[in-house]
Amino acid sequence: MAALQVSKQGIRELAKMGLDAPLAEQGKEKLLQHLETTVMSLLDVLAACSSSDGSGVTRLLFSEEWLEAQLALKDIMAESGLVPSFDEAGNLFGKLQGSEADLPSIITGSHIDTVVDGGRYDGAYGIAAALAAVRYLRETYGVPVRSIEVVSLSEEEGSRFPMAYWGSGSIAGERGFADIDDLEDVNGVSFRDAMRACGFGEGSARAARRDGADLAAFVELHIEQGAVLEREGMAVGVVDAIVGQRRFVVTLTGEANHAGTTPMPMRKDALEGACAMITMLREEAVRQGGPLVATAGRMLVSPNVPNVVPGKVEFTVDVRHSNPERLEAFCGWFADAFREAAESRGLELACSEWFREEPAPMNEELKELLDGACAELGISSRRMASGAGHDAQMFSRVCPSAMLFVPSRGGISHSPEEYTSPRELAIGALVLAKLLYKLGYEGERV
Amino acid sequence: MAALQVSKQGIRELAKMGLDAPLAEQGKEKLLQHLETTVMSLLDVLAACSSSDGSGVTRLLFSEEWLEAQLALKDIMAESGLVPSFDEAGNLFGKLQGSEADLPSIITGSHIDTVVDGGRYDGAYGIAAALAAVRYLRETYGVPVRSIEVVSLSEEEGSRFPMAYWGSGSIAGERGFADIDDLEDVNGVSFRDAMRACGFGEGSARAARRDGADLAAFVELHIEQGAVLEREGMAVGVVDAIVGQRRFVVTLTGEANHAGTTPMPMRKDALEGACAMITMLREEAVRQGGPLVATAGRMLVSPNVPNVVPGKVEFTVDVRHSNPERLEAFCGWFADAFREAAESRGLELACSEWFREEPAPMNEELKELLDGACAELGISSRRMASGAGHDAQMFSRVCPSAMLFVPSRGGISHSPEEYTSPRELAIGALVLAKLLYKLGYEGERV
Repeated sequence: MAALQVSKQGIRELAKMGLDAPLAEQGKEKLLQHLETTVMSLLDVLAACSSSDGSGVTRLLFSEEWLEAQLALKDIMAESGLVPSFDEAGNLFGKLQGSEADLPSIITGSHIDTVVDGGRYDGAYGIAAALAAVRYLRETYGVPVRSIEVVSLSEEEGSRFPMAYWGSGSIAGERGFADIDDLEDVNGVSFRDAMRACGFGEGSARAARRDGADLAAFVELHIEQGAVLEREGMAVGVVDAIVGQRRFVVTLTGEANHAGTTPMPMRKDALEGACAMITMLREEAVRQGGPLVATAGRMLVSPNVPNVVPGKVEFTVDVRHSNPERLEAFCGWFADAFREAAESRGLELACSEWFREEPAPMNEELKELLDGACAELGISSRRMASGAGHDAQMFSRVCPSAMLFVPSRGGISHSPEEYTSPRELAIGALVLAKLLYKLGYEGERV
Repeated sequence: MAALQVSKQGIRELAKMGLDAPLAEQGKEKLLQHLETTVMSLLDVLAACSSSDGSGVTRLLFSEEWLEAQLALKDIMAESGLVPSFDEAGNLFGKLQGSEADLPSIITGSHIDTVVDGGRYDGAYGIAAALAAVRYLRETYGVPVRSIEVVSLSEEEGSRFPMAYWGSGSIAGERGFADIDDLEDVNGVSFRDAMRACGFGEGSARAARRDGADLAAFVELHIEQGAVLEREGMAVGVVDAIVGQRRFVVTLTGEANHAGTTPMPMRKDALEGACAMITMLREEAVRQGGPLVATAGRMLVSPNVPNVVPGKVEFTVDVRHSNPERLEAFCGWFADAFREAAESRGLELACSEWFREEPAPMNEELKELLDGACAELGISSRRMASGAGHDAQMFSRVCPSAMLFVPSRGGISHSPEEYTSPRELAIGALVLAKLLYKLGYEGERV
């Protein structure tokens, strides 16, 4: 395992530059260069913990590579002057103890697991940037008033077992050992066995219990996984809310008929009905505008042969909005519109919801502190919704939570092509450091 | 093999009723009852030659069941006073020799093969009705002026080997032994080996050569395989033309993107584009009206997951019309419309034709004779296009050809549910008999 390639010497030099006042351009440039180096070194360490053959990163929950990454982070935390500890769910914490020991901690980090053949940044960046920021704060300002903890959350993606947010959900009380009893991966390995093999689980020797009661705030830095910041030339996105999601499967049943012998007016063409519905879904979503998005992503046509009028079509509808009432209203609208469209065509319609997640608004005070931090640092930023789910939505149920985005090139994620430049990564880490400084050292309350 | 269950006694009684003058209602009823019995008996014989386990009929080209059916028909032809013979392609002819031996023959029949688990009527009915009609004519009127031949064509469906119209195409010079060299069925059996095993092929002992030169006319009776006659309460459809067909595959390439993080205006959603195109295809086809039909029957979406904006969609377009200029014009229209729709969405479009068959107009004089026959017999009929391909389109290239439809319940075909009532079957056979009488005995020329 490569050790972290950032010299203590370099950090000590930076200790002269402070976040407690606006940075001079020269100081800011040096600090960004330092954060670049630290973040890139950490990302290299994590990307090396991968089972992918190709250029992507694969690090599934409780795999060999996953454990390798968590143990490497534990060592790096210790080297960085943080006190590392695991909890029973496999989450790793690195604590910079504050002088007021009774105050709950500020937590920052993201998830260590990846999708299969994913990128180097999703999740990993939030951990690397948190470590880089906290190392810098400790070297520069020493002991904070309030404890700051870097967290490497065990799981978020749901890539190995059919459950997502295991790490943050365990802390927030939204996931527990009772939920995993029947879970197996594609090779038939149970969640429990995989967890035990890594030394985690209820009462495990490696880990301590942890819950959401001792959290003052949670901050997650993440790549955008969209192209809004890139297209607008913005350095940072301050997340207003993580959108709620509702997913449906719509089934249309008409009549499979001979494509040559069935005149147009005699048809009950399920695909034609589906097309009309998807067209209106799109038109209404465009009309209402962001942060609403509506997607028909999967479609199965039956019998799906060129010379037969389709008798049955199944398609999915994924609707997201950060406002729960508007999310609800849009879903009600399309249910009515689809029913009318089906009736007018003599098609049978079934529409069932199979996934629902409520919107998770981020904490107002934290958002304002982040807006302020960007302004003070001269970093361009905008408020935006997160269209994807993140660990911060679990934390938002138990403590004030915030999220920061940095740009993703081409909006590409969950792919080896995922990319954010070192400078963009460093800018995110700098804003995070500024926020942690305000919360941990200046005693800002949220 | 069950012998044909119609007594000679019964036929001789019918000999008193003639097609040379309008039938009295009593006579017509008796004749229809007779034709019902004959046709149903023949269909029973053919349906027994099947490899289906269930209720459907499976009789693939050059299979054991297929040979059983052809040999049974050969015996029945001989019993019926017809001279049977095979050609090298496996077509079976049963000739009622005319008094003027030099005149080319009137041919009537259809194909003996079926799709996998098909119905009892598709193809088989045209053979059974032809045999019933010619038996009746011979018993009633004796030797015709012009020879009449019943044909059981070896193959039309393309169900076993990837080639359709082998039987009629061989006669019309549209198919030949050079075309089958590389053809294999799903089990890897070559067309040639299967053909040889049944005793057919070039220079085979069982068969003689036959080509289209000695044909005066071809008439095919077939179930409609659509629901037009049933819905309109018509007994018979006189086919104006067999539609031409053009089939395309349309490929749309956009950008696969995260369904949550990609705002609506930033999307290049290939499925949304495809839906818009299919909607306009349908609207324009409805606007133009029959006999034009346009169908998007097959669609493949990629990556086809609920939370990803579809980056690629492939769908088929099947367009049919009996008029070649209007067929061409519609295909030109949609190519332009699709190009515009793709451009306005920033989607890449590829549209390639992979199947083309020109319309086959039926012979005018034969159509008029059929209209007249229906009128004289007091049988309701209408002109209509055939939206499906039939052997008559092959014959239409070498001799005057005609087609007659009888109703299909619910328009269902290529299924065990295929059904036409005995009375409807008999009415078709009666019209066929009347036409054959006019052509073979009264010397109508076409």
